[in-house]
Amino acid sequence: MLLYHDTRAPNPRRVRIFMAEKGVAYDAIEVSIDAAANRTPEFRKKNPLALLPVLELADGRILRESMAICRYVEELHPDPNLFGGDPWERAVIEQWSRHAELELLIPITGVFRNTNKYWNGRIKQIPEYAEILRELVAGRFDWIDGELATRPYLAGSRFTVADITALCGIDYGKLSGIAIDAATHPHLAAWHARVSGRPSAKA
Amino acid sequence: MLLYHDTRAPNPRRVRIFMAEKGVAYDAIEVSIDAAANRTPEFRKKNPLALLPVLELADGRILRESMAICRYVEELHPDPNLFGGDPWERAVIEQWSRHAELELLIPITGVFRNTNKYWNGRIKQIPEYAEILRELVAGRFDWIDGELATRPYLAGSRFTVADITALCGIDYGKLSGIAIDAATHPHLAAWHARVSGRPSAKA
Repeated sequence: MLLYHDTRAPNPRRVRIFMAEKGVAYDAIEVSIDAAANRTPEFRKKNPLALLPVLELADGRILRESMAICRYVEELHPDPNLFGGDPWERAVIEQWSRHAELELLIPITGVFRNTNKYWNGRIKQIPEYAEILRELVAGRFDWIDGELATRPYLAGSRFTVADITALCGIDYGKLSGIAIDAATHPHLAAWHARVSGRPSAKA
Repeated sequence: MLLYHDTRAPNPRRVRIFMAEKGVAYDAIEVSIDAAANRTPEFRKKNPLALLPVLELADGRILRESMAICRYVEELHPDPNLFGGDPWERAVIEQWSRHAELELLIPITGVFRNTNKYWNGRIKQIPEYAEILRELVAGRFDWIDGELATRPYLAGSRFTVADITALCGIDYGKLSGIAIDAATHPHLAAWHARVSGRPSAKA
């Protein structure tokens, strides 16, 4: 398997952490978003949306979208499972996985896109919209801190794909001044230390 | 099973169509977003995010998030499957399901939120941001029209959950003046007629 990724982007990191948790080996090619290597006609043949990550199989088949890639890898390498072991656990993990994406990763990415000088001149930025997202994320931190008061990981007693998404989202927030304040959100901070301490977090 | 929904919102509709395709019976309670019934302390016990849909099981367990609900129903009622029958098919359906959500449903919902008078005074609207989303969706229509030139459904030769998400997203666009122009996007228009003609589309 060949993974097209950018070491600095949050979505490819989700796949790299997932692979590391599974102990799955793969080849990787860096596609620099900074150098617009994702926007070349050649790369657009692999992904017309010019997004990363992309997985290419040995027979040439292409798979886009971080969660489609992770689910496929889970099927090929079921242990340890990160999407759940029975119907109800899979449903709860999916619920938290979506919360992590829709309430953290996506809005946090939106703050970056609409405020960081990196995107200045590349896209039309609306800092006013970023402030709305920033406020939303602050509220989600409050909520998730309360949730994590009751259990060590987002979806329950063990580490799952939901934690991977939340970690990649929150860490990406550092570039936009979004950080966990341990005094205000002690449970979220403890969770962050817990998941960041796993070897996979360096992937 | 008891489904909390709002007949006019796109995410509950995804679940209703999914249930109809499966032939699964369920009870339903309308939670009017218009009347702020989703924002009461009582409903927030079921979903602190005040979002719909929510599924409540007979034993009181609660599941939030449309796709978590659909996946759980798929596990209980596997035939006909709408998430795929083997690892590769499941991966491809997941890829298209995410494209349908991230590239159609979510931006189209964003246009509505930032322009419709319904939200005026309820949230801070940024019409300028809606225009960015509108342009993005127009580009996605171009892309998906080309994809649908090669096959009858988003993920391949048969109807899947990816088509449900795309249908709910595109139909919701009507409220914001987003519509398929059959002259420009004939394949997308033919697909829309095909999926809208299924009995489940009325659910």
